[in-house]
Amino acid sequence: MHEPGPRIRRDRGFEHRGGGAVSTDGTVRLVRTQGVTAAAGFRAAGIAAGIKPTGALDLALVFNEGPDLAAAGVFTRNQVRAAPVLWSQQVLRSGRLRAVVLNSGGANACTGPGGFQDTHATAEQLAGELSNWGTETGAGEVAVCSTGLIGDRLPMDKVLPGITEIVHELAGGLSGGTDAAHAIMTTDTVPKQAAAHYAGWNVGGMAKGAGMLAPSLATMLVVLTTDVVATPDQLDHALRGATRLTFDRLDVDGACSTNDTVLLLASGSSGQAVPQAELDAAVFAVCDDLSAQLMADAEGVTKRVSVTVTGAASEEDAVTAARTVARDSLVKTALFGSDPNWGRVLAAVGMAPVQLEPDRITVSFDDVPVFADGAGVPGAREVDLSGPDIALRIDLGVGDGAATIRTTDLSHGYVEENSAYSS
Amino acid sequence: MHEPGPRIRRDRGFEHRGGGAVSTDGTVRLVRTQGVTAAAGFRAAGIAAGIKPTGALDLALVFNEGPDLAAAGVFTRNQVRAAPVLWSQQVLRSGRLRAVVLNSGGANACTGPGGFQDTHATAEQLAGELSNWGTETGAGEVAVCSTGLIGDRLPMDKVLPGITEIVHELAGGLSGGTDAAHAIMTTDTVPKQAAAHYAGWNVGGMAKGAGMLAPSLATMLVVLTTDVVATPDQLDHALRGATRLTFDRLDVDGACSTNDTVLLLASGSSGQAVPQAELDAAVFAVCDDLSAQLMADAEGVTKRVSVTVTGAASEEDAVTAARTVARDSLVKTALFGSDPNWGRVLAAVGMAPVQLEPDRITVSFDDVPVFADGAGVPGAREVDLSGPDIALRIDLGVGDGAATIRTTDLSHGYVEENSAYSS
Repeated sequence: MHEPGPRIRRDRGFEHRGGGAVSTDGTVRLVRTQGVTAAAGFRAAGIAAGIKPTGALDLALVFNEGPDLAAAGVFTRNQVRAAPVLWSQQVLRSGRLRAVVLNSGGANACTGPGGFQDTHATAEQLAGELSNWGTETGAGEVAVCSTGLIGDRLPMDKVLPGITEIVHELAGGLSGGTDAAHAIMTTDTVPKQAAAHYAGWNVGGMAKGAGMLAPSLATMLVVLTTDVVATPDQLDHALRGATRLTFDRLDVDGACSTNDTVLLLASGSSGQAVPQAELDAAVFAVCDDLSAQLMADAEGVTKRVSVTVTGAASEEDAVTAARTVARDSLVKTALFGSDPNWGRVLAAVGMAPVQLEPDRITVSFDDVPVFADGAGVPGAREVDLSGPDIALRIDLGVGDGAATIRTTDLSHGYVEENSAYSS
Repeated sequence: MHEPGPRIRRDRGFEHRGGGAVSTDGTVRLVRTQGVTAAAGFRAAGIAAGIKPTGALDLALVFNEGPDLAAAGVFTRNQVRAAPVLWSQQVLRSGRLRAVVLNSGGANACTGPGGFQDTHATAEQLAGELSNWGTETGAGEVAVCSTGLIGDRLPMDKVLPGITEIVHELAGGLSGGTDAAHAIMTTDTVPKQAAAHYAGWNVGGMAKGAGMLAPSLATMLVVLTTDVVATPDQLDHALRGATRLTFDRLDVDGACSTNDTVLLLASGSSGQAVPQAELDAAVFAVCDDLSAQLMADAEGVTKRVSVTVTGAASEEDAVTAARTVARDSLVKTALFGSDPNWGRVLAAVGMAPVQLEPDRITVSFDDVPVFADGAGVPGAREVDLSGPDIALRIDLGVGDGAATIRTTDLSHGYVEENSAYSS
């Protein structure tokens, strides 16, 4: 594991999931009761605008009061990108964001030029309302995120009045952040927030779905906030470093959405500029915790699985090998059945395009060796995998590259949710 | 489709699945009641040697009476290869095979040096018995194939006596071939045979499982026979060309076994040497039909799906794009639910590492357009996919590369068979 790994003190009930962040005293307090408003200088709100026919919360706003408006973002690697992704990538070029508006109830993907105009109109509407409210704002300072079914136009007769309403709902307290975290949920069963508090500065965040684990309306959207003083380049460094080791290594079904977006906004309202390494570690800690929450709430999940590859020729090989195993349907169905079928692990890793010498590979489940010296270890078929967490480790024995991919089993629940989902 | 595609006359009840072979009169008769013994000069047998605890048939033999012993083979691309694959790859270097011995009930993969010794002993035993029987044979003329659970040693106290017995069971009639086709079954529900008869010469074959669609004991094993006079190089050309367009384009769950083996043996007993193109087409026809049978009998299958990509920058891009869609769990679960969720198709194809321009893509289900000009086609959500066969077509609009991948849906049955399977 080439990840930062200091000791972490978490709130009661949160298990340690590896990784973490260092503050000046060597510890960091992570809480899940606060999200984007845990950082000073941010307000948020979540409302039911009528985009979802169910009447559930479906429109969220994150507003940066400043004084700084620095921001960075990472987006889906899918070549087919939704209108809000195309829009937000464009506005992020300035490295400045005043606000992020997010909707569930529709992805606005594969909706043609009309869909892009809808996104543009959404940003314009929000900029106008914020300006009316006393904060001069341009549409180019507004990022837009959408999640829901691919292919349908958004009901703009609901979205635009909703924006007028949500600007009036902005509240400085924590409840605004929690409402926002609720408003971006689709098939999520719980809202997902995390915040890390340091001496005089904070990082907060919220997340929904996971681009890699859910149906076409389960894009991963993440908004992170901090009150440090930082340049867009510093934020970009922290964000890319953190997502590479967290969200990018969460792989439930190999799918990647048209809408995946992770944004980091800095208000500077703490007045503190912190060393890059501290900012990196703090953003990592929040992303790591949100990743664990996304895995735990994956559709149909009955097992939380970490696939760790060590001894690879490079870190890249380790990621590739771990991802190949994590995506293998035969491994995933075996884990659903609590079956320590290590032969499927060998068959899967053998298909990874990485440097391998089969006789050097060792495999363990929950630290019990099951394969070594080119053959099964006696008793390997009796390993008890009936619990909800499974640690699968594969050492390739050819180098010192290492990486962990978080994944889940492949269950009846996954098939049910994704086949029964209406389009 | 850059595949040979002449008209085919099949036995009643067999639908046309694309592709085929040309004989001198432009047609070929394919039957599924005959397999490896459809070609002159081959005998086969299948017996219950006690390798499977159930007492089912589990040992098969294909014997080439000659006069020629020319042979070619293609093997799994998995870096983790079973002992019988390592052995058979080695003996195939000579381009000669007298016999193939196949067992179900155990893959003999990941079994260390002891497992390789078991394979070697199996070949030696068969060579000795055939020599006793009057056909001087060396172990280096015997290919070995195994299929079953990965990781366990074979019960050699059953295998070796079984070989003695099966040599005495060899029969020249068709029933021997059918017994052999039964003896290599694992989770297959039906034996799979195909034969193509031409004017004076024949190609036959049998297959089991499919390396890409089944649990760890569902390796794809295929043995093909012909009575033409051909060199090993001619056989190799025909076999590689056919497998590239058939078995290599059957992709049910992206998995590839440690044991996959496809062999082609020529006896020369027809006395006819045929043009390379005719041999290629005949071997293709049999492989294509066996591929269709493998897809139809895939574990848990409720839908037979063809994913055709046209308009790609190259044939390679078309294969990559079609395979990416065919492996996407969200597309496959939607098809299980008869849901024309074209947004998932767009999201999947967008992740393929190929040349794409999203606005040029068109998608259709069963020839009904659902996506064009960057947006959904009106009525796209109402396409009826309730039947067992689904043709998904994606035109990328950037070139003239084309390819079809055969796949299936992702069903409760797949999860059940692969999670409940004991190891």
